[in-house]
Amino acid sequence: MQNKGILIVVSGFSGAGKGTLMKELMKRYEDVYALSVSATTRNPRKGEIDGREYFFKEVVEFEKMIAQNELIEYARYVENYYGTPKAYVNQQLASGKDVILEIEIQGALQVKEDYPDALLLFVTTPTADCLKERLINRGTESAEVIASRMQRAIEEAEVMESYDYLVVNDDLETCVTQMHNIIKSEHFRVFRNQAFLEKTKEDLANRGLA
Amino acid sequence: MQNKGILIVVSGFSGAGKGTLMKELMKRYEDVYALSVSATTRNPRKGEIDGREYFFKEVVEFEKMIAQNELIEYARYVENYYGTPKAYVNQQLASGKDVILEIEIQGALQVKEDYPDALLLFVTTPTADCLKERLINRGTESAEVIASRMQRAIEEAEVMESYDYLVVNDDLETCVTQMHNIIKSEHFRVFRNQAFLEKTKEDLANRGLA
Repeated sequence: MQNKGILIVVSGFSGAGKGTLMKELMKRYEDVYALSVSATTRNPRKGEIDGREYFFKEVVEFEKMIAQNELIEYARYVENYYGTPKAYVNQQLASGKDVILEIEIQGALQVKEDYPDALLLFVTTPTADCLKERLINRGTESAEVIASRMQRAIEEAEVMESYDYLVVNDDLETCVTQMHNIIKSEHFRVFRNQAFLEKTKEDLANRGLA
Repeated sequence: MQNKGILIVVSGFSGAGKGTLMKELMKRYEDVYALSVSATTRNPRKGEIDGREYFFKEVVEFEKMIAQNELIEYARYVENYYGTPKAYVNQQLASGKDVILEIEIQGALQVKEDYPDALLLFVTTPTADCLKERLINRGTESAEVIASRMQRAIEEAEVMESYDYLVVNDDLETCVTQMHNIIKSEHFRVFRNQAFLEKTKEDLANRGLA
């Protein structure tokens, strides 16, 4: 069976619990998955280590990466660049790890163009009501922020169809297991196992007549 | 999430252990799956019950089913017709069960035309050598039968690509779990959850502005 890892793109509604989900998945299956490390031009915060939280770059370096097509996707927020370096991702995939990119929907669609075999997962709550409740229950967000998150969710929902699977976050434990099973099952997809198929055909032809 | 069952087509190399696999799957998850019951014009054998092993039909009845498009797929082996009645399958799917059809590759491709959402699983051994060994180790097959099974495997291998997933039967327990996980994961595919998507969009639009 296939030994190469799968590139997994995870997006989802703000408030659906993506962050907690990723943390739990990495904790449970740290040998299986690698979280992609982004590059950024923003300054490191206290405690952040280059190559762990981010690859910290000067603007000229970052723009050189863009020019040389060394990023899978990138975007500019406010004053800073953020992007996903190809080299790190490809190296992890080659080593057999499934690499997880947690990115916004625009980036996700960019990735799918360059990596058509990428697996796109969309994290959602069981219902829209539930999403609003969670945003309200955080207690840290103003009514304005909640409204803008909900508005963003409406926009994101429009592209859910471009994703491969829904990951419905009702109970965290169940959801982590489901997500892991989805990814594990994808390794058995026929189109991801061309080498195995070719070898089987070849061996059958040789052994069958022996 | 989707409540309708998935139509699952299972084919595979003779000797790959499909029969044992199905038996174990049904035993472990009898509430989840329904095995499709075929119709046939052959005579019932001792102990076989109409509607359990097969739906036993007269030739005229069977040919009427063909004429009225009441079969998902059918074939004629030697003197007898064998086929899959639509009514039974649709009724089980509507009740939320995943329905398993264990059929040959020609039938499988027929099914996919009428049921484009059907999930096609191909059961294989880890290697071609392993397949031959298992056929030999059964001890019940003549060298000639083994050769013809291997020849058939060569032909079947040519259409493996039309299937969705490989189910690699190395260890039975592992394989049953994998197969179950593949099917369970498929329920979360975006294209199988259009109703959920539409409802989410609608609710977000309503709640978001409330």
